Amino acid sequence: MRFLINDVFDFPAHLEKLGLADKTEGMIDAVIDESAKIGEEVLAPLNEIADAEGCTHVSPTEITTPKGFKEAYGIYRDGGWQGLSFPETYGGMGMPFSFSIFQADILAAANWTWLMFPGLSKGAINTLVAHGSEPLKDLLLTPLVSGEWTGTMCLTEPQCGSDLAQVSTKAEPVADETFLGMQKYKVSGTKIFISCGDHDLADNIIHCVLARLPGAPEGTRGISLFAVPKKLVGEDGSVGDLNHVNVGRIEDKMGCHGSPTCELQFEEAEGYLIGTAHKGLNHMFTFINTSRVGTAVQGMAAAELAFQNSLWYAKERLSMRSLSGVKNPDGVADPIITHPAVRRLLLTQKAVSEGGRAMVYECALLADKMQAAEAEGDVQAAKRMDDRMGFLTPILKGFLTEMGLEAANAGIQVYGGHGYIKSNKQEQVMRDVRIAPVWEGTTQIQGLDLLGRKVMLQKFRPINEHCMELYKSTLGILLKGEGGKLRSHAWTLLKHVAEWQMLTLKVALRARKNKDAIGVAAEDYLMMGGYVSLAHHWLHMEQAAVRALKAADKSEEDDFYTAKIQTSAFVFDQLLPRTRTLAQTIIAPLDSLMDIKADHFSFDHSK
Amino acid sequence: MRFLINDVFDFPAHLEKLGLADKTEGMIDAVIDESAKIGEEVLAPLNEIADAEGCTHVSPTEITTPKGFKEAYGIYRDGGWQGLSFPETYGGMGMPFSFSIFQADILAAANWTWLMFPGLSKGAINTLVAHGSEPLKDLLLTPLVSGEWTGTMCLTEPQCGSDLAQVSTKAEPVADETFLGMQKYKVSGTKIFISCGDHDLADNIIHCVLARLPGAPEGTRGISLFAVPKKLVGEDGSVGDLNHVNVGRIEDKMGCHGSPTCELQFEEAEGYLIGTAHKGLNHMFTFINTSRVGTAVQGMAAAELAFQNSLWYAKERLSMRSLSGVKNPDGVADPIITHPAVRRLLLTQKAVSEGGRAMVYECALLADKMQAAEAEGDVQAAKRMDDRMGFLTPILKGFLTEMGLEAANAGIQVYGGHGYIKSNKQEQVMRDVRIAPVWEGTTQIQGLDLLGRKVMLQKFRPINEHCMELYKSTLGILLKGEGGKLRSHAWTLLKHVAEWQMLTLKVALRARKNKDAIGVAAEDYLMMGGYVSLAHHWLHMEQAAVRALKAADKSEEDDFYTAKIQTSAFVFDQLLPRTRTLAQTIIAPLDSLMDIKADHFSFDHSK
Repeated sequence: MRFLINDVFDFPAHLEKLGLADKTEGMIDAVIDESAKIGEEVLAPLNEIADAEGCTHVSPTEITTPKGFKEAYGIYRDGGWQGLSFPETYGGMGMPFSFSIFQADILAAANWTWLMFPGLSKGAINTLVAHGSEPLKDLLLTPLVSGEWTGTMCLTEPQCGSDLAQVSTKAEPVADETFLGMQKYKVSGTKIFISCGDHDLADNIIHCVLARLPGAPEGTRGISLFAVPKKLVGEDGSVGDLNHVNVGRIEDKMGCHGSPTCELQFEEAEGYLIGTAHKGLNHMFTFINTSRVGTAVQGMAAAELAFQNSLWYAKERLSMRSLSGVKNPDGVADPIITHPAVRRLLLTQKAVSEGGRAMVYECALLADKMQAAEAEGDVQAAKRMDDRMGFLTPILKGFLTEMGLEAANAGIQVYGGHGYIKSNKQEQVMRDVRIAPVWEGTTQIQGLDLLGRKVMLQKFRPINEHCMELYKSTLGILLKGEGGKLRSHAWTLLKHVAEWQMLTLKVALRARKNKDAIGVAAEDYLMMGGYVSLAHHWLHMEQAAVRALKAADKSEEDDFYTAKIQTSAFVFDQLLPRTRTLAQTIIAPLDSLMDIKADHFSFDHSK
Repeated sequence: MRFLINDVFDFPAHLEKLGLADKTEGMIDAVIDESAKIGEEVLAPLNEIADAEGCTHVSPTEITTPKGFKEAYGIYRDGGWQGLSFPETYGGMGMPFSFSIFQADILAAANWTWLMFPGLSKGAINTLVAHGSEPLKDLLLTPLVSGEWTGTMCLTEPQCGSDLAQVSTKAEPVADETFLGMQKYKVSGTKIFISCGDHDLADNIIHCVLARLPGAPEGTRGISLFAVPKKLVGEDGSVGDLNHVNVGRIEDKMGCHGSPTCELQFEEAEGYLIGTAHKGLNHMFTFINTSRVGTAVQGMAAAELAFQNSLWYAKERLSMRSLSGVKNPDGVADPIITHPAVRRLLLTQKAVSEGGRAMVYECALLADKMQAAEAEGDVQAAKRMDDRMGFLTPILKGFLTEMGLEAANAGIQVYGGHGYIKSNKQEQVMRDVRIAPVWEGTTQIQGLDLLGRKVMLQKFRPINEHCMELYKSTLGILLKGEGGKLRSHAWTLLKHVAEWQMLTLKVALRARKNKDAIGVAAEDYLMMGGYVSLAHHWLHMEQAAVRALKAADKSEEDDFYTAKIQTSAFVFDQLLPRTRTLAQTIIAPLDSLMDIKADHFSFDHSK
């Protein structure tokens, strides 16, 4: 983390530039040190127990969380950590967004399901900050930012997940009834898959609910967003009676047992409009984008956790002799870390974890700039940053969750049969992260968002700008030629960027004849962008390591930097070549996917 | 199945050639129909319950299986199915090996963990048939073949799995004690990961145990194989007292809950030598090879099950509109099967399931030939078939288990969030199949077996023979040019075969300088062989379909054959291009995997 923060991205200079140097003095170290303490001492020890114990549906308004979750949340809340990057107006610390990412990086690897409770709440806070009316913000934000309450996102219904046009939950205005000047609504409908939809960590829960107003247009243009508290809130902010939000069931799922996935039944529950009527989906995207970055963190954290748990084992487990000669003559066999196949598994985990971290931190850096631009009222600059993040988010989310799953899968493989046993803690990582490529929009949906919405609908501008950035920085490294393989890696990357950009054009030409060309290409197009981005960040890490090695005062950390350079070589030699396949499949014939009729996928001859 | 059996492989002609036509008349249909009945009516309904319930460790000699398993086993046993492909001498039906593969194909998809009980027992039977002394065979084989008893394979110990050189279980001859003329031994040691190591399905269990005799050489050349019954057997074959084999625990694992994974403690348990002293590992390979093909079936079956469960859902679930125009104007949205990304998931499952089946059936066909050659005493022909299977087995096992896992993973993705919920039955497929790329030798070990033992140690003969076969049959299709894309697919395949063969040579040249070149290449080399093999079988299926389409009397099944042709196109356009990456990584620089020191993978700066 510190290598990225200091050597690669130079966050101190970045904060200086944003005029935040004084305010944030010493804070990064404090965030890292304190988060590490909470992660190591409080959260990590609860991760395995939470998986075994799960959550309990005591009653429709009482869900209990696993042992220790409540106490851990108390420590986090009392430390004021929920407010780390939220405005001081509402009791937050007002630190840059990136700081909360540094914290999430640590806590996510320690205990992902626990982090979901405050994590989802942050999405609700962001949504209210961005779109809530003043009385609503005044009412809800302070207890949310303090962590006294939490928030949720209620989108999915039994008949629809990705396709929110089908949302059928209703919100009816209550005639002549207002609260703090806000119109009261009665919200009715069933929402499913509501993560942390109920629990015992906080006094109250604010649900952000998508619903339709009477006479609303069909489809996504008729959806509005409502704040519906679990318990009614008094004018003074006091928590009152229950508000007809019942948990029908909590799901029995593959993993993530520590966080309850709730079916919520809203039965004329009182709620207040967030933002503008019928603009609910737009508003919700504030929440969704926060969650998508959060889910990218989930993927990266799974890679980190699986890597940490694999590495010590690979050094200790003795099996077979190295093909290139005995490495551990005093032992009965060589440690498995000497075998190339095991090294590849470990290096994949390391590359995804450390490279994924760089990808996420880049996004955090942009978010800081956007935050600063907004604070200064520089709408254009904020929009520029927002666009850039909008382009990067689907790649981050889609690529890092898929790679996190691969890294977790590798973790089982390193352990062999022992990886399949629960007590060795590797299979839980895989079960927990398996949902990451699904929720907050599947990888397939991320692909369509990237290639369809971000690239095609905006006539290539985002991809061209992105590639221009990549050309510039990579060309810089190529021209400087600071040693080692930097120059050849830069050259390889340049060719890949050009190829990716060119493929965009090819897909666009194919799409003019048949729009399915976008659907056929989207997922692989995203993954190719992911590999290019991963390699790009490793190239920069490699450069930073080469420089650090040259600086005399860093000599004692030579090994650390050398390992970075070696891992970069691994990325270029073993991971980036995966684009060789993608470059073909992105423009593979459409008919081999589209021709077969739905009824011809299978035939039941027994009938 | 019938398309492969009749149209592609022409098993009737194959049986005729082996002189088995009369004996097997009508039997294939009987096996398929009766197995389908057992699979559909008896086993499939137990699959989900078994996952939820698991097995219970009642006492060290009493493990109970999930609800219904015992009754299901009774039906299978009473039907005489365990003896399907075993010699009539021991009460079997004496049918060709392939018939038991047809049956396993069906039962594995219905309920994999149940099938493990009779499946592992078959390995024990094969081992005894091949290596047991006459009195041992007379004593044990009849009840094993009837299914009255079952058998297990006891290799792994806490300190060693893949590296059996470390086996430390001991076997001491008991002075002056024999049984039916066989020396008695006392076997002591702890074995772990013993699948179906104890259970309530059968009256007795015969454990095949690897152990060391006093003064045995170190390493794999000092391991012998013993038959150790759970309960002692009288001279008349009657089941007597317990024989000091205790279950220490059953493992709590990610999946496969229906089959107990036991730690077995042998405490001076009575046993008899199987085969020759110190040749235990060689003998055990009879068992291991059976199990490896069985595990390939597990991978293929997982793809089939995930596909079946995905397909109906993809047709019924309505979400979003097709990019190329509304497909379901009367519905609120289009079925997700209209979307390219979902089609790709489904077609991957279909390609792996149906193409994997072809790969497995080819191996079954070779096994039939070997069986027949052995029966005729044609040692050379038998050896030829055995070599060929020895070459194909690691590809089958490694490739089909990895692809089965991918197909199961795709099954979750098709369902979106619903795929993560247990009741939708997709996540169980993934948890159950996750062990397949691990047990019976990891994919990495399969790679080393293929490239190291089979190809390099035998100086390329097996790969060259294999490629020659592929050239011949593919060239045949190329020259005939029977229409459609057959010719272009054949040409593509030829190039791939040549490339794979050439890469073998390149790796060999690199290995002359550094043996690690083999380890670096092995896994990807295997996977490349898998894709080539998959495409090869799809090409033949495509040819059979093209021919069937031309035959007038098949016109009513046009759609079935057209779908085969379309799926073949998918394989060539979307799956075979994965070799583009593998062709690079197989010969990627060694240093990017090997240079980084074990202690430099990670640094703990907090210390």
